[in-house]
Amino acid sequence: MNYGEKKLDRPIRVGMVGGGRGGQIGYIHRMAATRDFNFQLIAGAFDVNPERGRDFGINLHIDPSRLYDDYKEMFAKEKERDDGIEAVIIATPNYLHYEITKAALENDLHVVCEKPMTFTVKEAEDLKELSEKHKKILATTFAYSGYQMIEQARQMVKHGDLGDIRVINMVYAHGYHNVAVEKHNASTKWRVDPKMAGPSYVLGDIGIHVLYLSRIICPELKIKKLMCSRQSFVKSRAPLEDNAMTIQKYNNGAVGYLWSSCVNSGSMYGMKIRIVGEKASIEWHEDHPYALSYEVQGEPQKIMVKGADYLYPEAREDDRGATDVVEGLFESWANLYSRFAQAMYAIDHGKTYDKWYPNVNDGLEAVRWIENCVKSADNGASWIDYK
Amino acid sequence: MNYGEKKLDRPIRVGMVGGGRGGQIGYIHRMAATRDFNFQLIAGAFDVNPERGRDFGINLHIDPSRLYDDYKEMFAKEKERDDGIEAVIIATPNYLHYEITKAALENDLHVVCEKPMTFTVKEAEDLKELSEKHKKILATTFAYSGYQMIEQARQMVKHGDLGDIRVINMVYAHGYHNVAVEKHNASTKWRVDPKMAGPSYVLGDIGIHVLYLSRIICPELKIKKLMCSRQSFVKSRAPLEDNAMTIQKYNNGAVGYLWSSCVNSGSMYGMKIRIVGEKASIEWHEDHPYALSYEVQGEPQKIMVKGADYLYPEAREDDRGATDVVEGLFESWANLYSRFAQAMYAIDHGKTYDKWYPNVNDGLEAVRWIENCVKSADNGASWIDYK
Amino acid sequence: MNYGEKKLDRPIRVGMVGGGRGGQIGYIHRMAATRDFNFQLIAGAFDVNPERGRDFGINLHIDPSRLYDDYKEMFAKEKERDDGIEAVIIATPNYLHYEITKAALENDLHVVCEKPMTFTVKEAEDLKELSEKHKKILATTFAYSGYQMIEQARQMVKHGDLGDIRVINMVYAHGYHNVAVEKHNASTKWRVDPKMAGPSYVLGDIGIHVLYLSRIICPELKIKKLMCSRQSFVKSRAPLEDNAMTIQKYNNGAVGYLWSSCVNSGSMYGMKIRIVGEKASIEWHEDHPYALSYEVQGEPQKIMVKGADYLYPEAREDDRGATDVVEGLFESWANLYSRFAQAMYAIDHGKTYDKWYPNVNDGLEAVRWIENCVKSADNGASWIDYK
Amino acid sequence: MNYGEKKLDRPIRVGMVGGGRGGQIGYIHRMAATRDFNFQLIAGAFDVNPERGRDFGINLHIDPSRLYDDYKEMFAKEKERDDGIEAVIIATPNYLHYEITKAALENDLHVVCEKPMTFTVKEAEDLKELSEKHKKILATTFAYSGYQMIEQARQMVKHGDLGDIRVINMVYAHGYHNVAVEKHNASTKWRVDPKMAGPSYVLGDIGIHVLYLSRIICPELKIKKLMCSRQSFVKSRAPLEDNAMTIQKYNNGAVGYLWSSCVNSGSMYGMKIRIVGEKASIEWHEDHPYALSYEVQGEPQKIMVKGADYLYPEAREDDRGATDVVEGLFESWANLYSRFAQAMYAIDHGKTYDKWYPNVNDGLEAVRWIENCVKSADNGASWIDYK
Repeated sequence: MNYGEKKLDRPIRVGMVGGGRGGQIGYIHRMAATRDFNFQLIAGAFDVNPERGRDFGINLHIDPSRLYDDYKEMFAKEKERDDGIEAVIIATPNYLHYEITKAALENDLHVVCEKPMTFTVKEAEDLKELSEKHKKILATTFAYSGYQMIEQARQMVKHGDLGDIRVINMVYAHGYHNVAVEKHNASTKWRVDPKMAGPSYVLGDIGIHVLYLSRIICPELKIKKLMCSRQSFVKSRAPLEDNAMTIQKYNNGAVGYLWSSCVNSGSMYGMKIRIVGEKASIEWHEDHPYALSYEVQGEPQKIMVKGADYLYPEAREDDRGATDVVEGLFESWANLYSRFAQAMYAIDHGKTYDKWYPNVNDGLEAVRWIENCVKSADNGASWIDYK
Repeated sequence: MNYGEKKLDRPIRVGMVGGGRGGQIGYIHRMAATRDFNFQLIAGAFDVNPERGRDFGINLHIDPSRLYDDYKEMFAKEKERDDGIEAVIIATPNYLHYEITKAALENDLHVVCEKPMTFTVKEAEDLKELSEKHKKILATTFAYSGYQMIEQARQMVKHGDLGDIRVINMVYAHGYHNVAVEKHNASTKWRVDPKMAGPSYVLGDIGIHVLYLSRIICPELKIKKLMCSRQSFVKSRAPLEDNAMTIQKYNNGAVGYLWSSCVNSGSMYGMKIRIVGEKASIEWHEDHPYALSYEVQGEPQKIMVKGADYLYPEAREDDRGATDVVEGLFESWANLYSRFAQAMYAIDHGKTYDKWYPNVNDGLEAVRWIENCVKSADNGASWIDYK
Repeated sequence: MNYGEKKLDRPIRVGMVGGGRGGQIGYIHRMAATRDFNFQLIAGAFDVNPERGRDFGINLHIDPSRLYDDYKEMFAKEKERDDGIEAVIIATPNYLHYEITKAALENDLHVVCEKPMTFTVKEAEDLKELSEKHKKILATTFAYSGYQMIEQARQMVKHGDLGDIRVINMVYAHGYHNVAVEKHNASTKWRVDPKMAGPSYVLGDIGIHVLYLSRIICPELKIKKLMCSRQSFVKSRAPLEDNAMTIQKYNNGAVGYLWSSCVNSGSMYGMKIRIVGEKASIEWHEDHPYALSYEVQGEPQKIMVKGADYLYPEAREDDRGATDVVEGLFESWANLYSRFAQAMYAIDHGKTYDKWYPNVNDGLEAVRWIENCVKSADNGASWIDYK
Repeated sequence: MNYGEKKLDRPIRVGMVGGGRGGQIGYIHRMAATRDFNFQLIAGAFDVNPERGRDFGINLHIDPSRLYDDYKEMFAKEKERDDGIEAVIIATPNYLHYEITKAALENDLHVVCEKPMTFTVKEAEDLKELSEKHKKILATTFAYSGYQMIEQARQMVKHGDLGDIRVINMVYAHGYHNVAVEKHNASTKWRVDPKMAGPSYVLGDIGIHVLYLSRIICPELKIKKLMCSRQSFVKSRAPLEDNAMTIQKYNNGAVGYLWSSCVNSGSMYGMKIRIVGEKASIEWHEDHPYALSYEVQGEPQKIMVKGADYLYPEAREDDRGATDVVEGLFESWANLYSRFAQAMYAIDHGKTYDKWYPNVNDGLEAVRWIENCVKSADNGASWIDYK
């Protein structure tokens, strides 16, 4: 149970790049970071427009002297202070992730970076190397993975409750962009521009979220081969896809299906995952995140819920209330940020943090998956060896 | 509304091959055929064991003199009678479908045959030709298509309620055969034996059910290319698959995904279909067959139910009660058998029956799909041109 | 499992009063009666308008010579025949139930009568006496009780799976009559006319359905005290209610709540029942009739489904297909009619039929409940001793 | 939309009484209060055991010099400071609410008090008077009312979308206390002790939550008459009830049903409310708090979700993310605390705050309802005029 008792000596001082006015994503980062007294947001370069960014930061009760024109200024000025930032949250469009993260690590800052981490595997490997060299954490916000029932799923697989895993059915298919909303919506516009979004749209924007859930739940499974078929139903989005199906074959003989889409009209809560084992399956849906369906062949379907005594202890650690306290996405994020803070604290104090969280490897593996998907898709949706 | 008023002058005299003791499938055929006074079951060769078949038929109140050792005897003897059978229901294992159907048509009988109709496209084409030559109906029991909400779905697509169709997501994935139940279960045993089941297991046993739903709902869409990846998770089932994913591309640019499986542990009601259009999606689940989810992007999700005034008139024709009379699979079958009878009556009277039903072409197209899937699967799950 | 093998030597010859053209209720009676070869419908007086009734009967393939002007003629003429009817189905408005049932029993016919059986307890007791005197079955169609999960519920209570029963929450509250539809709808019109419907509307029309479920599931519980508050939201319905809440206290200290309504706007499937025991609760909904929620405090919610191996054997007896054959209201009715036939056969052959079914006592007890509710309601919704 | 931009010049300085270690309720108060920068928690008397309370406060990063032995010390010492607290959160067992709130108001502090506000109407009226005299806010945490779909429900009723309201069906019935858990659980123990809990258990502990929802959604409806039947299924809880049904009649002729229970075995999320109008009904469930079912008679059921464009503007004000950001109980609380802060700020600055929130009148009316329920229940569950 987590009732807000502090886990660190003092909050980590953090700054933010991007995530300014009108954006929901910056808000949820800030709420998650500060929720458990683990981070203190004290600096920011919130906007490409410095004036607007400064105004926004003041509104967040941040000392105006620590509101900067851009990340470069922030990193430089904060470095000179005794009470300078120790970490940075990067919530910009994709094309800036690499350069800002690189600069941050080189400035000895811990980083929490939005996904996808980079455009290429090569860039991601660079960042991984930098992260190791500077002994700084590089975390990515695969933000649905902080739900307690994801941990329960992981424990069930680990304990063999499902038997051998055979099929992983992954879906992240919403309908918000069924038409070319990007014409009037800045936060969608950059996502369909290869220069700003990278080599893919829905694969990298949402597909990797549910991919990461599968990796956390089934850490033993490794992709060996993959094929991806992608389309641009809104034609102006080409070459970026707004719909894709990936089939992947794992080392143990299991298969995975992953449907990524933003044109699944009418779907408001588009993510779900089903893990099929020899004995039983489990299924989790984004819109009922505190529940997990557990279906043993030949037995009644069981609906497990967060906070309950029958869960594995690991799945109860982050619970923030009685069973009937319905938790949502903010809690999932906060749970992850709490782990980020502990991991940062641990490495800074020469210790090891042993709970999983979406780390630099996970960021790298997501980019690798996108790269493989795009390679297959652009080669006639052919099967390729996963590299 | 259908409150049981008769549609034909008199019931059609029908015999049955297979479908004897212990089998649920024979029971549902009989219930469906006789439900609306359109068929009268008066003869049968219910079992490979003639004695057992005879005993079973007596139990069904059939005149013992019309219980036969096998279909050959039945066709020959009934032909000699003035009141002989006019149609036959074939509910045997797959490997007998072709020869019995062929014999029936050659004896000028209408046929209702279980799916898949044949092992090969060639055989199916033979039967189609025979059916045309003898002017007899050859219907197949794609038995989930008789639900009223399937008709509603068809009408919605036809009237453009969804806009252009982009994605069809089809699933028929149950868990009843997660382990090798065929070792102790005769009705499963033949299904995993290529000699009796044909070139596929789940593709032909269940995949084609949901495929047919997609064809009825979206009759304008034609498959142009396809790939299929199949597995035998229970190894003894090889070369027949117990799990498969098919991706197909249609003439209009839409894509279809079809997951067939009998190892989806814990799934009791495994069929569902989602049609994604530019404006809206519709979704139907086997376990709530009287409901249809209608999801217009940007509007609240709507749950339509059978019998309601707001449905298209075609979707209310077969309604057998007020909205709150929950209908199930027996009604779906009965609706189809009612159409079979009317189609038989029409052709026998030189008329045209203009309502759709799973006819010889549909039986043929299902076999074609299986053949294409197997071809792709056995060629490394490669993309093939659909033929 | 029930795969349609015959249970009786020959079908019982049955006639029908009422249930003619345009009525769904007659249709479902006929479907249920004839489903299992237990009844043969050979005579009828289907309509107050003899011509229309005769025409309707012909359409049902009934010998025109056995279509009668009214029930009196039918009972008289059929009595003279060697192959005359042995039973009658009464599907008329309420006010005719008593006189027709009385006449039927006096003519030594078994009776299946629509609910409520009579207007008064006195009348119901008369019929019970007649039924015993003539040794004829008088069954009533509490038609939702034939679902297999109702039997499962009954067995679970019997086996103590819930512990002591504490609360029974019953709802039958639909919205079809939210406005005065009776102005344009004959089948609703008589229901709100005390002369034709009796002393209540929704209590007697639908409340007793869910009351009967509670009695079947918890046969040990007896009502000791009761209060009922009723309203006529559509004012022209007064003195008959279109909404009522009954609270009842049972012999074991349990309490029951029963909401009856036809003005519950938007509710299409209005019946549900929840049985709360010390250890666990079970809940059943009309719109998912093949499922039963089983909720043990402290454990995951379990969803049981019809046909499954884990059910009590009694709950599988009437199963008509594999687990995935979704059953609906027609199957529930058919299961009851099968029991009616067996009970009729048994008493005619001097035997005992030991399975429960809605019999004359159940019909009587429903009338008693209505009488008590009305008495309380008309006395200021005061508490009364149940008599 | 609420993306965390500040609403006040500076956060209100707040202290807390109770809500210490091991309690989830204190945690959720703190999270809600501080979420939007509207409150700064700077003092506390968190525990009856001062040492434990102090230790707990330190863990919350509070200055040790502002951790007090009890509320009296806190009020006195803080009053002497220029930067003393301006408001207090009271999260103690019920029996302390009155005395602490009284002292707080007399010390010119704004108060957020747990429900029920007091044991008696008389006490609640005292507090109301004090609140008005000192011009300080007294808010109560009917914490489920901050969900956006509750606001949507309110707006729909206000705009006549449902027509005249006829029935309100309220349920708050969970199963956590199906057995005498209080023997081993301190946080339950005081709730079943009349000296600490007051004259009722489930009526006051949970029933008033759903009652308040009905009042917010249907502000025009006033209770005129009421009856309440209550039981103690766990006998040691008598005279306090663990189960109760209240029926109430409103000024407009509508009726309300309210089932309060803590012995509803297996129910994990026990609250729901259905408002039945002449034209349509709406229904909301605690476990899907971001959705609202809208059921117009004769139309498909609609599922509305938070954040959507089709909602009334008032229902979108507090949205903290895109539609697909699933919100839970923490957001509901935070929305209320945000209103509390604005109301406090307004009154301190001589302004009017015009958005509703659970205020002193609401606290008073809840106590009045409990008092009426208990009076009826203890008088044989008789009908009483509501006073």
